Amino acid sequence: MSIALDAKTQTDDPFDLATRITTRDGRTIGHTSDAYWAFVGPFGGTTAATMLRAMMDHPKREGDPLALTVNYCAPIAKGPFDLNVRLIKPNRSSQHWSVELTQGEDVAAFATAVFAVRRPSWSHQPKTMPQVTPFGDAKPYREAAANWVRQYQFRFVDRGPQIGESGDGALASAHTKLWIRDAVPRRLDAISLASMGDAFFGRIFHVRKEIVPFGTVSMTTYFHTDAEELAAMSADTVLGVADASVFHKSYGDQIAELWTPDGKLLATTQQVTYFKA
Amino acid sequence: MSIALDAKTQTDDPFDLATRITTRDGRTIGHTSDAYWAFVGPFGGTTAATMLRAMMDHPKREGDPLALTVNYCAPIAKGPFDLNVRLIKPNRSSQHWSVELTQGEDVAAFATAVFAVRRPSWSHQPKTMPQVTPFGDAKPYREAAANWVRQYQFRFVDRGPQIGESGDGALASAHTKLWIRDAVPRRLDAISLASMGDAFFGRIFHVRKEIVPFGTVSMTTYFHTDAEELAAMSADTVLGVADASVFHKSYGDQIAELWTPDGKLLATTQQVTYFKA
Repeated sequence: MSIALDAKTQTDDPFDLATRITTRDGRTIGHTSDAYWAFVGPFGGTTAATMLRAMMDHPKREGDPLALTVNYCAPIAKGPFDLNVRLIKPNRSSQHWSVELTQGEDVAAFATAVFAVRRPSWSHQPKTMPQVTPFGDAKPYREAAANWVRQYQFRFVDRGPQIGESGDGALASAHTKLWIRDAVPRRLDAISLASMGDAFFGRIFHVRKEIVPFGTVSMTTYFHTDAEELAAMSADTVLGVADASVFHKSYGDQIAELWTPDGKLLATTQQVTYFKA
Repeated sequence: MSIALDAKTQTDDPFDLATRITTRDGRTIGHTSDAYWAFVGPFGGTTAATMLRAMMDHPKREGDPLALTVNYCAPIAKGPFDLNVRLIKPNRSSQHWSVELTQGEDVAAFATAVFAVRRPSWSHQPKTMPQVTPFGDAKPYREAAANWVRQYQFRFVDRGPQIGESGDGALASAHTKLWIRDAVPRRLDAISLASMGDAFFGRIFHVRKEIVPFGTVSMTTYFHTDAEELAAMSADTVLGVADASVFHKSYGDQIAELWTPDGKLLATTQQVTYFKA
């Protein structure tokens, strides 16, 4: 049988290429992307996005992503991987799914997701976007220690990471705000939001003003809009706001928000991270 | 074969009874608790705690819970349920697990967890506990619309829910702070923290000052201490701080923290909830 590319991924967009999946003989296969490579493995955002895409492209999928949890179980080696997609439980207006990412016998990542057909309701957004310098007036961040960083345009609106300035011994704030856009602008969808939720630099790099061994262990993202609303917005840029609560006994956390420039909350995400310091 | 009760659950404590599991012929079985019954099913906190216990009591488990995600897939009927525990991926100092809760052929809940052997490291807690009225000076909350509420002692330190006061049409804040303790005091452990993370009243009840159809769809909890530290604290009370970001198209979120009275962050938790309003 020939490889059947999903029509939605027949594109030259770098993010779509990096998160492309193919189906053949009942297997769903993804491939790591050199363009989005991180220090010792693929950027976790593209891994999450690829796993989400595998569920979204499944013929039985109904509704839009509401919640996505990705557990990063082991390093992913350069090359192809299998995506074993399972519909755990279909309901009338929601579905529960899981995806296992394997290379050979090893499970390298495991994700669960909830999809929902979102019905009109009362709307209320208690949280408000912070007032910040507009995207056009903020300065692009030019450093890129890893390939994946070059795939985004980052514009910090308070201060960027002060890597190399740890000599004074003072800790910096874990709270940062920055504009995030795909380097090749791409209309936001749930898949790109899943990836952008992991595109913040490690909180510990900001706080300690130095790079230390670090990795995301588990990440959960909630989506607060559906595909129809996202398409209507036709936006390609988010304001990312991230913070940390605690670093303790080799693990820390991150809580983050992704906002449209006009103050609509698109997604909230949290992750627990390993560090060595 | 006879039912082998785990030694850790041979207790008269109501919470331990409600989250008790038994193993027989290779099956792990739990049972819903009338004492912790909610409106249309068991309290989601005990479901999460029972699933966590099934992993913790597994002979291959190493380390302490670091992250727990529970997806509530379908209503759980009164009675027994199976807990299908799977070690997805063991690493040198961490493990990835899943648990499937089934009744007959139906999956009613699905959880993933990460366990870690936590090594000493640099510690830093950027987040600080709000200054509040001490537990002893706060007034116990006496309303209990469902059985499970009676299993906790709640003491709001700002304002409690203003149910029935929606007539003025004004929305209240989604932010609340309250002391939480098991009604029969019980030393905190990861299992009780997993449950307490779901013991906040629906944010929408606070905001709209009325009860509406509501349910947790997915909940993720990060644990910021290990068993050794929790045992050394010998604490039985937490300050719970909860807030919401958005209610939109039938779903909303909740972000919460559980603190020791002296300001140590024990756990952070978020959930996405369904509502009808």
